[in-house]
Amino acid sequence: MNRAFERFEAVMEKAMALQAAMALFEWDNETLAPKEADEYTAKTIGSLSEQYREMMVSEEMRGAAAACCREGGLSGTEEAMLKEVKEEMERLSCIPAGEYREFAKLRAVATGVWAKAKEEQDFQKFAPMLETIVEYQKRFASYQAKEGQKLYDVMLDSYEKDFSMEALDAFFGELREALVPLQRKAQKACADVDDSFLSADYPLHAQEEAARFLAEYVGFDFNRGVMAVSAHPFTTNLHNHDVRITTHYRKRIDSSIFSVIHETGHALYELGIRDDLTQTVLGQGSSMGMHECQSRFFENIIGRSRAFWEPIYGRVTEIFGEPLKSVALDDFLAAVNRTAPGLIRTEADELSYSLHVLIRYEIEKMLIEDDVPVTDLPEIWNRKYEEYLGVRPGNDAEGALQDIHWSQGSFGYFPSYALGSAFGAQIYFHMKKEMDLDRLLREGRLDVIRAYLRERIHQYGKLKTSRELLREITGEDFSPKYYIQYLKDKYGR
Amino acid sequence: MNRAFERFEAVMEKAMALQAAMALFEWDNETLAPKEADEYTAKTIGSLSEQYREMMVSEEMRGAAAACCREGGLSGTEEAMLKEVKEEMERLSCIPAGEYREFAKLRAVATGVWAKAKEEQDFQKFAPMLETIVEYQKRFASYQAKEGQKLYDVMLDSYEKDFSMEALDAFFGELREALVPLQRKAQKACADVDDSFLSADYPLHAQEEAARFLAEYVGFDFNRGVMAVSAHPFTTNLHNHDVRITTHYRKRIDSSIFSVIHETGHALYELGIRDDLTQTVLGQGSSMGMHECQSRFFENIIGRSRAFWEPIYGRVTEIFGEPLKSVALDDFLAAVNRTAPGLIRTEADELSYSLHVLIRYEIEKMLIEDDVPVTDLPEIWNRKYEEYLGVRPGNDAEGALQDIHWSQGSFGYFPSYALGSAFGAQIYFHMKKEMDLDRLLREGRLDVIRAYLRERIHQYGKLKTSRELLREITGEDFSPKYYIQYLKDKYGR
Repeated sequence: MNRAFERFEAVMEKAMALQAAMALFEWDNETLAPKEADEYTAKTIGSLSEQYREMMVSEEMRGAAAACCREGGLSGTEEAMLKEVKEEMERLSCIPAGEYREFAKLRAVATGVWAKAKEEQDFQKFAPMLETIVEYQKRFASYQAKEGQKLYDVMLDSYEKDFSMEALDAFFGELREALVPLQRKAQKACADVDDSFLSADYPLHAQEEAARFLAEYVGFDFNRGVMAVSAHPFTTNLHNHDVRITTHYRKRIDSSIFSVIHETGHALYELGIRDDLTQTVLGQGSSMGMHECQSRFFENIIGRSRAFWEPIYGRVTEIFGEPLKSVALDDFLAAVNRTAPGLIRTEADELSYSLHVLIRYEIEKMLIEDDVPVTDLPEIWNRKYEEYLGVRPGNDAEGALQDIHWSQGSFGYFPSYALGSAFGAQIYFHMKKEMDLDRLLREGRLDVIRAYLRERIHQYGKLKTSRELLREITGEDFSPKYYIQYLKDKYGR
Repeated sequence: MNRAFERFEAVMEKAMALQAAMALFEWDNETLAPKEADEYTAKTIGSLSEQYREMMVSEEMRGAAAACCREGGLSGTEEAMLKEVKEEMERLSCIPAGEYREFAKLRAVATGVWAKAKEEQDFQKFAPMLETIVEYQKRFASYQAKEGQKLYDVMLDSYEKDFSMEALDAFFGELREALVPLQRKAQKACADVDDSFLSADYPLHAQEEAARFLAEYVGFDFNRGVMAVSAHPFTTNLHNHDVRITTHYRKRIDSSIFSVIHETGHALYELGIRDDLTQTVLGQGSSMGMHECQSRFFENIIGRSRAFWEPIYGRVTEIFGEPLKSVALDDFLAAVNRTAPGLIRTEADELSYSLHVLIRYEIEKMLIEDDVPVTDLPEIWNRKYEEYLGVRPGNDAEGALQDIHWSQGSFGYFPSYALGSAFGAQIYFHMKKEMDLDRLLREGRLDVIRAYLRERIHQYGKLKTSRELLREITGEDFSPKYYIQYLKDKYGR
């Protein structure tokens, strides 16, 4: 073994421990921490974040990395870790320590400000904070930008490599052209579908029991994971033996049902990462898009199919009781696949979902590239919702304040949701050539599907890019056509 | 302001952030983490612990501390922080980095090994691990020992300054002489007390509701704290705005009732620490003894008194329902104050409690100073229980395996429990001169009692030693006579 690499690993382990600590604090903040703790805990998280940065750009890390290169003879995996660390080092070292730290502190309180503004349905109460966040993110991007690189492209790159604005403009262009008319048509066709039984007064414990059952059925391992409740469902992990998901319980039971399947899709990715990659810089999903691909594949392509529900529908309706118990499976499926333009992205049906994402992509571009003032956002937001979906938010909470992302400084994340759906459809078309997916689902053999995804995707963590994975699995480069085809097949009928 | 101190504070903040992260991981491990996470999370905790050590002994810290001394003009609080850091620096720098790290990793898995051995009631399954822990602790103590200082004295010093074996031999000597005969006599007097109603089949949710009510009544602030369930009740804190307690629910309801009051006593201490001390090296209790003083003061002196229960007994019995609802307050008090020699320290009555601690003190001395082999512990343990309490454990789970402490490497901690009780009695005698405690309790005015303790003790954190606090409050040095007097008054009748 390369001796220098051992030293490199020891330094990386420290950075990873700090990252795990930050993940735990974030989990704790969203699920449990007392409400007055914020300001003080922000100081702790800010310091951990600063220490993470210091560790990554330290002489110790640089020296260890340089020694590895000099000594040579690294394995492919070791090379990849080194490359990943160097990229992170470069990304971080161009941001001055003080600014990095100040932003980490800001970020730790910003979500609270956003949540309060949302509660009060008043975007302008969040606007000054958002303006500061946008300034930070633009400045950070300008530090990182390569010669001539646009700022929003820098941001996009941190979530999804090889997908610049140019690529995304083309991608979203195709989606818009195909989906806007498809959505209008499909919407009319299912206008009469009854979904009132989804929001009958089911007891909370039934929702909890169903959530646990579904998570386990899809493959969540409760010996290596935890499920809790938070305002905004998410998945996090400390390593591949501690993966955590959250859900929320609303009046409409499909909200928690599909959020649990979605988060379990994320969790399967993290649980499936190889042991030699977990707790290293490669111990995470390939990209945000590939992560969303896994979650949305399970939530929609699998989770809203007839074959998935056939073996478990009886059990699930037993848990909920009446009125669901008397609803035929086909009526349930029609309800959870009904397309109707709504205001809330996370509650959107599969077809209109990408239009929600498209709106955010366009707004982020305006915000970052065209310097549109933050205070204009609600109006821009509402206009775009009218244009693409034909609905107009009644207040900011169901408008520009609905998502947590911007309060976290995540600009460029949203496109991942649409890309992930498109990745998923492309993989789905290929999988169907290799196995009888419907039969497997009807027989409850989700283990075969999990094994397939683990072998081709999960195990590699960040060792391969999403484009590489797609090419290896499907034998061709990324193409949005499968996603459009999938939606046409499903909603064109 | 001293400019050098600002730099010193910045480095201290980093060390404190690492400490808070470790506290959160510990909390999470005991209350929530999935069972297969242990081994991996241990790596993270080991690394954080190593980074804490590195930060405390770093050139950065040394340089900042030295600059503060050179520049001078520090406030009293600043001086105290500097002193505390220097002591910790000295303590840590004599332990080689590798050993410190290895022990931190070991410690993170040891509790699991102990828990499993306890479950299987087999001390010998824990013995090899315990032997390694004892070796580490002795070696660490030998690194830290001053010229001629005994190893166990080094360990005692880390929990309670100014209480060496010499002082404790005298203290426990007095206790043994007074309490062994008093216990025997009192035990006979209350042999007929009926306490069967404490272990009727009360529903879990009643225990939970009572726990929450009592915590709140004693003064736990749920906006700045969290309560959860763990095998072994404990209190931890991230800072003075995030203090966490746990309890457990057993068949006997007094177990959770008094553990909640006990942990709330600890929590009040942490919640009461001044804002300029929290998140610094002085942001914790003065000593383990003073911490136990607060918890045991509320649990026993306050919490088992008639005056405490008078205003709330109706409410609490309402929560539990029958049979407790039909039990007269005096019968309830007789039951929860009944002395009967038992096997389990945490379930012990107030009078025999210190005898449990005495046994542990004597065994720790043998283990550390006389090199008694670890494998002999169960037999020694059982013999001492027969001698002092007249009972003999039927298995190791109710014998030498019952406490978590040794698995954590905490030798020298146990005496704090007895010292804390004695501190509490001394403060109690003094408080009674200044206020009508019984009347305040009967009127539900716990806020007055809390304010008194906050003003005299809590706010100072670690700024003053327990001996200093005792002297300032009571006007005299520590003396065990009040504790013995208190127990004679209570149980002599």
